[in-house]
Amino acid sequence: MDYVIATIASHSALQILKGARDEGFKTIAICKGGKEKPYKLFDVADEIILVDDFSLESFNAVEIRLKEKNAILIPHGSFVSYLGTERCTQLSTLYYGNKAVLEWESNRVKERVWLEKAGLQLPRQFDSAEEIDCPAIVKFHGALGGRGYFIAKDAADFKAKIAKSVYKNRSYVIQEYIVGVPVYIHYFYSPLTKELEVMSFDRRYETNVDSIGRIHTTDQAQLNVDVSYVVVGNTPLVIRESLLSKVIEMGENIVAASMIINEHGLFGPFCLETILTPNQEFIVFEISARIVAGTNLFINGSPYTDLKYSAPMSTGRRIAVDIKQAIEQNRLHEVLH
Amino acid sequence: MDYVIATIASHSALQILKGARDEGFKTIAICKGGKEKPYKLFDVADEIILVDDFSLESFNAVEIRLKEKNAILIPHGSFVSYLGTERCTQLSTLYYGNKAVLEWESNRVKERVWLEKAGLQLPRQFDSAEEIDCPAIVKFHGALGGRGYFIAKDAADFKAKIAKSVYKNRSYVIQEYIVGVPVYIHYFYSPLTKELEVMSFDRRYETNVDSIGRIHTTDQAQLNVDVSYVVVGNTPLVIRESLLSKVIEMGENIVAASMIINEHGLFGPFCLETILTPNQEFIVFEISARIVAGTNLFINGSPYTDLKYSAPMSTGRRIAVDIKQAIEQNRLHEVLH
Amino acid sequence: MDYVIATIASHSALQILKGARDEGFKTIAICKGGKEKPYKLFDVADEIILVDDFSLESFNAVEIRLKEKNAILIPHGSFVSYLGTERCTQLSTLYYGNKAVLEWESNRVKERVWLEKAGLQLPRQFDSAEEIDCPAIVKFHGALGGRGYFIAKDAADFKAKIAKSVYKNRSYVIQEYIVGVPVYIHYFYSPLTKELEVMSFDRRYETNVDSIGRIHTTDQAQLNVDVSYVVVGNTPLVIRESLLSKVIEMGENIVAASMIINEHGLFGPFCLETILTPNQEFIVFEISARIVAGTNLFINGSPYTDLKYSAPMSTGRRIAVDIKQAIEQNRLHEVLH
Repeated sequence: MDYVIATIASHSALQILKGARDEGFKTIAICKGGKEKPYKLFDVADEIILVDDFSLESFNAVEIRLKEKNAILIPHGSFVSYLGTERCTQLSTLYYGNKAVLEWESNRVKERVWLEKAGLQLPRQFDSAEEIDCPAIVKFHGALGGRGYFIAKDAADFKAKIAKSVYKNRSYVIQEYIVGVPVYIHYFYSPLTKELEVMSFDRRYETNVDSIGRIHTTDQAQLNVDVSYVVVGNTPLVIRESLLSKVIEMGENIVAASMIINEHGLFGPFCLETILTPNQEFIVFEISARIVAGTNLFINGSPYTDLKYSAPMSTGRRIAVDIKQAIEQNRLHEVLH
Repeated sequence: MDYVIATIASHSALQILKGARDEGFKTIAICKGGKEKPYKLFDVADEIILVDDFSLESFNAVEIRLKEKNAILIPHGSFVSYLGTERCTQLSTLYYGNKAVLEWESNRVKERVWLEKAGLQLPRQFDSAEEIDCPAIVKFHGALGGRGYFIAKDAADFKAKIAKSVYKNRSYVIQEYIVGVPVYIHYFYSPLTKELEVMSFDRRYETNVDSIGRIHTTDQAQLNVDVSYVVVGNTPLVIRESLLSKVIEMGENIVAASMIINEHGLFGPFCLETILTPNQEFIVFEISARIVAGTNLFINGSPYTDLKYSAPMSTGRRIAVDIKQAIEQNRLHEVLH
Repeated sequence: MDYVIATIASHSALQILKGARDEGFKTIAICKGGKEKPYKLFDVADEIILVDDFSLESFNAVEIRLKEKNAILIPHGSFVSYLGTERCTQLSTLYYGNKAVLEWESNRVKERVWLEKAGLQLPRQFDSAEEIDCPAIVKFHGALGGRGYFIAKDAADFKAKIAKSVYKNRSYVIQEYIVGVPVYIHYFYSPLTKELEVMSFDRRYETNVDSIGRIHTTDQAQLNVDVSYVVVGNTPLVIRESLLSKVIEMGENIVAASMIINEHGLFGPFCLETILTPNQEFIVFEISARIVAGTNLFINGSPYTDLKYSAPMSTGRRIAVDIKQAIEQNRLHEVLH
């Protein structure tokens, strides 16, 4: 019985479908009408299923077609945000990964429990303005894509700034502001090999915060720039080799701690989003329990995967390898939860 | 009849000549005496023609030799700036591209007409200081390489700063200052396949503006740093996959709109130089209607070309592929205008 | 007689060992206990020798094993810092490179003599606070990894800041502060081919100085951030092609000037650490006379090595090629000093 690899056409779908093709699978892109051009021009899909939207009804119809084709769905960041965590959990199509992880990733309280159980260092969180005793960053929830975030040095500063914010009626989180460089760590853990792999690293490219440093301080003071953190791309990096032990340990701990979710735990690609401080400590502010867009940099392999693999190994392709090996070993059920 | 690929030894010549070799062409580097070492060490040229300068007389002599060899010239940024737009237009050697585009690219008024016809978003331009009603950047013309540019918040600020500028007697343009991250988009359009390709993306590396952010605000205020925007390199990036539809649309529109130039329009490599704002809008401040130096990052292929091509496809090599296919299809005249 | 390639497991060992494997050598990683995981997961070592520490006694025992295996040691930055310059000089195991260079690289006075003899431009150095007549950076010596460095605009500013520094009892150097972008140039010079190669370029990724530009000037002023320059990674870049002539000239001059060290001079990989100014001048603030960690970006080749080599050529692999050719040509003694 032949399987087909399918995903929603966005985020990291080019790499997922290309990787699947490289491993011999047929591929399906599920695409919002009008957004199909990249998938045609880069020619990564054997079939493009067009949808008007990602409503319950639309995707029910898609699922019927997917099941006819014996398709395995690969989730990614936009996949989850388009369908919603709950709808994802209810998918009846074959699904690579452990759906139970989705809720733990999307719920900030559960996420924190998981990260702490893994022994990772997290930024402190303040339940109220009064608790702020160090520089803090205020992040608004919802689909704002990093807009409106601000830095507060104390309770008074917070109150002055929140009062002026256009987002003040949104819910938000107040987090310790860590001064250090961003490092996004891309991992892969296979339930077949039981081995953790460090795939690559990136730094997000955020508008406009990654260009305000190009404005002289005198001009910045005058221009009244609103700082925003909207992710629009990624840039590559490698990290100091002596930090790799720590990186691996963090990844292994996250996988081990994921047994609190259920007996399948976390597997496949995931990412720890960290700030690396002058003390060379990784402060983890988030986990993405699926493929992240930063891996798009490494469609032809990264300096790290080039060490291990003789073929160019993107994270998307690594997923396809996992599925292929599972099929060959009659263990497909072990990667579909 | 065998063709040879030739270019002036600078800018992106290493990649152009290497790419031509990879496609089976013999290559010629036209090199200012004393600048030939990189082309020897990297061994990309079958022949190096040394010149004392790029004067009319020198290049006339070069053209005689090029025509004897049946050479096809590949233009690039320094190519045009060394010879001048007018001299380029008068070249009698075979020339890849449409020479009529050169004037539209180099003339700021015509360039703006073209970009606007393509429906792209441009920064506003102010004809006089009095019109400045938002932060503006003042750019001086001529071979200054990004020196002396300054930001003005209003007419008064402009007047105070221009009065103190050592470049005040130069002509300049006053443009809306867009706060967002730079994104340079590398395209290729083949008149043979009629298909637009997204080759890669980069961010320019400019001295000293890309290091002033490393100076603490207190020190910056004291040090009296003059900000400059001299391009000395490039760094790689990938962009959010959901933005690719827009990127492709912009490229297709630019090609379609280029029919105002003449019936051959724009083809081959080109670049849109943009600022990507927090609203995820691309504000286009310039078009380069030929290969740009940012593609030098991707001599062994980019994450995007790796999707489409099984061999490493630099932009330089893509040009050679276009020429080779044109020859094979007896359509060479279609790529030489 | 078969040779084995060995190095201390840190810094750029993954690339060195992988490169050696690619050239057909067996490999040994000398690893501090508890730090071996990356070397196992990336599977680059045929043998891992575990040590408790890098004391004289421990390494004497290691040397006995290395000599039994006919191992050639490859030095790198952490190699030298773990063992110390003196101990490195006394190694009796086969050693790739010229040990006499180590003292010239590590002694700031000798290093300056060497760089000046090569005609490179260096930042000015001030022997006392009173001499400061331009913005200066104060760098503390010892294993602080870039912590506590500060910028002083004049003698008074220096005195005020040094008095408050927690590192004030350390020795330090006062250097002209050059405002320009960092460019790290990776070279390779083979004593067999007598040819200089430009391998790649990087920019270091330093915490927290590479993220303070993401903090708005108003917040920076309030947050009281201590700036530090701890290197935790690297990001890739290419430079303007017209600068390559100058880059090659600088490298050739450094190699030529290294004859003041001894008759073997500098060979193998090395790096010039520069600031590139708006005048397009390279100001060299340091030389690393061995492989640098920035080359870890290019484990699968760089845009520059891809021009010259048909196989992916990391700097680590280039070392192995040099040793292999030396063996084949019965010239091994020429690369072991």
